[in-house]
Amino acid sequence: MTLVALPQSMRFDAPLPLQSGASIRGYDLAYETYGTLNADRSNAVLVCHALNASHHVAGVYEGQPGSEGWWDTMIGPGKPLDTNRFFVIGVNNLGSCFGSTGPMSINPDTGRVYGADFPVVTVEDWVDAQARLLDALEIETLAAVMGGSLGGMQALSWTLQYPERVRNAAVIASAPNLNAENIAFNEVARRAIVTDPDFHGGNFYAQAVVPKRGLRIARMIGHITYLSDDVMNEKFGRTLRGAVGEAAREAYHYTTQDIEFQIESYLRYQGDKFSEYFDANTYLLITRALDYFDPARLHGGSLTQALATATARFLLVSFTTDWRFSPARSREIVKALLENRRDVSYAEIDAPHGHDAFLLEDPRYLAAVRAWFGRIAAALPPAGAAHE
Amino acid sequence: MTLVALPQSMRFDAPLPLQSGASIRGYDLAYETYGTLNADRSNAVLVCHALNASHHVAGVYEGQPGSEGWWDTMIGPGKPLDTNRFFVIGVNNLGSCFGSTGPMSINPDTGRVYGADFPVVTVEDWVDAQARLLDALEIETLAAVMGGSLGGMQALSWTLQYPERVRNAAVIASAPNLNAENIAFNEVARRAIVTDPDFHGGNFYAQAVVPKRGLRIARMIGHITYLSDDVMNEKFGRTLRGAVGEAAREAYHYTTQDIEFQIESYLRYQGDKFSEYFDANTYLLITRALDYFDPARLHGGSLTQALATATARFLLVSFTTDWRFSPARSREIVKALLENRRDVSYAEIDAPHGHDAFLLEDPRYLAAVRAWFGRIAAALPPAGAAHE
Repeated sequence: MTLVALPQSMRFDAPLPLQSGASIRGYDLAYETYGTLNADRSNAVLVCHALNASHHVAGVYEGQPGSEGWWDTMIGPGKPLDTNRFFVIGVNNLGSCFGSTGPMSINPDTGRVYGADFPVVTVEDWVDAQARLLDALEIETLAAVMGGSLGGMQALSWTLQYPERVRNAAVIASAPNLNAENIAFNEVARRAIVTDPDFHGGNFYAQAVVPKRGLRIARMIGHITYLSDDVMNEKFGRTLRGAVGEAAREAYHYTTQDIEFQIESYLRYQGDKFSEYFDANTYLLITRALDYFDPARLHGGSLTQALATATARFLLVSFTTDWRFSPARSREIVKALLENRRDVSYAEIDAPHGHDAFLLEDPRYLAAVRAWFGRIAAALPPAGAAHE
Repeated sequence: MTLVALPQSMRFDAPLPLQSGASIRGYDLAYETYGTLNADRSNAVLVCHALNASHHVAGVYEGQPGSEGWWDTMIGPGKPLDTNRFFVIGVNNLGSCFGSTGPMSINPDTGRVYGADFPVVTVEDWVDAQARLLDALEIETLAAVMGGSLGGMQALSWTLQYPERVRNAAVIASAPNLNAENIAFNEVARRAIVTDPDFHGGNFYAQAVVPKRGLRIARMIGHITYLSDDVMNEKFGRTLRGAVGEAAREAYHYTTQDIEFQIESYLRYQGDKFSEYFDANTYLLITRALDYFDPARLHGGSLTQALATATARFLLVSFTTDWRFSPARSREIVKALLENRRDVSYAEIDAPHGHDAFLLEDPRYLAAVRAWFGRIAAALPPAGAAHE
């Protein structure tokens, strides 16, 4: 059964105060919903996206084959997050470039495109904006909030900012903050963008150019960190581009600027594709939101103290070969929650695919999520109570 | 006792045929020597450099405090590679930018700077050029060849290309080839350089510009891969720039383009420094030499077959937190040598510093190298036989 997705947009006219002290005067949020809200409005699940994803988390657009949402393996009718039982909401974050207000939007204060003037947004700001969307949808309490990677940080932050509004939280392939290496990779990617002469300090829209060189480099770096060493060796190894058979092993072309190895071809392709659709200012904003997230920061570095106010029941999932957000980082969250005597399920999945694993179809992973949502669904009013 | 280094240069007029099929018509090699060659010319040790180093491996230049060679912790009077007993040779590789012929040199065929026309050179080509330097110095056989990282690849290649000329080989923090992830990082760095508008296809010298943006990004990426996660967390963690005391934890400035974290400041500094002195074409050439090195390639992928012709005694050293050239890669070499019944010592050093560890003062590491050279020295004629 095909789930058909319908993008929607909600306008918010009240200014949103931000962590930085600035505010956004008015804004739109692009979102999608799947499934049906039940009579007592208790079966809503909010799904938060990571760096380059959007509100289109599941299903396809009418008449657009291949337009599956980014988490379509996870979410849909009969899937681990079952849209026959839950009312699922995907929302594009503020500052992104897929329909919500962001750097490409018009700044009402100036009448010009925001560009570099779009305010810095944080995970906490996104959660506040998402809470207003729920208000508008008249959803007081979420059955669950769920996210992977940066989306997991939002799920975690929901339990701290609005503990009374979220009964369950799934934090997948995530971390309680970025470590120095994570920040370092983000910074190199940002420098590649900012030092691209076509960036023009972030105000490149008026010049009718796009800092594609920088975006390409940023995406190539990202891709390396999403994949595990193992999967790269298996998928590409040292295979030469266009190499077939044993003789091809010898066929070096001795070039420094042209493609020689398949891994180079793959990375260039990913970089090119990304630079065609992603906004450079959004890339800066979203990587900075990652850098800044650190709930322990205002608790003397104690994650246990920081998570003391969370009352949700948790599912944590990590993947053994994820070196971007390693299992050790998930275990820090598990430990802090257990020290607060919270209800926590934790699955450490032995998967070869690195950080990308959270988007892929691993049967053990999907089974763990399915079981967790099954228990949540069992606590809901019977399906017959749903209004259509 | 201070070792004083004196840079020298040797001119070679005979063309050097290269692996690519091209050749270099004539060239200079910059080199330095330390210690005294003994009477039977049997105590020479060649030290091979890695990506951004040079022939200046040990000692200081007269009147230049702080000019220590890049491996001065390892090499000198009374040091693990003891210049009181060995005649040590450091040589700058062809294509580099520290005195040997490279992309910044004049191409005798055109009368213009080589730039992008400098031929692609391989580890094997470097070894051939080094062998000619030994010929000129009338050194038939090396007591040892030694190198770390890319230098270790040269040491390994020496034992395959000139097995009769090298009695011992120390291959440190190295690998039998690059894996897909290693190549991927090199490729991103190269793309950053090549797509810098100031690169001009490699012929930027005539334009009186330098592709500094690209070099900075390349170096930042490099630095991340040289350090371990652990040492980055310990050295920088999430500390903010200029942060002092507990209150500073709260002092986010909410900026995407300015420096917020100390790790960012460190990386930018390293990138800036590198872009001031390193040649962009050399960066491409040297990373490509890394990519291409793969002795098993012409042996159906069998490293054991590839190393069958090596007769030297080996020392392999790896460092537990080196994720660029992990211990597993060194163990592949050890295994292949043992399958050929070669004499191999292997030290896996539990060090926190990542790939950089091979350049640092770790007492266990230095002791292992000292012991290995001690056995080599013991087999030499008594020191009294040395001519002064």
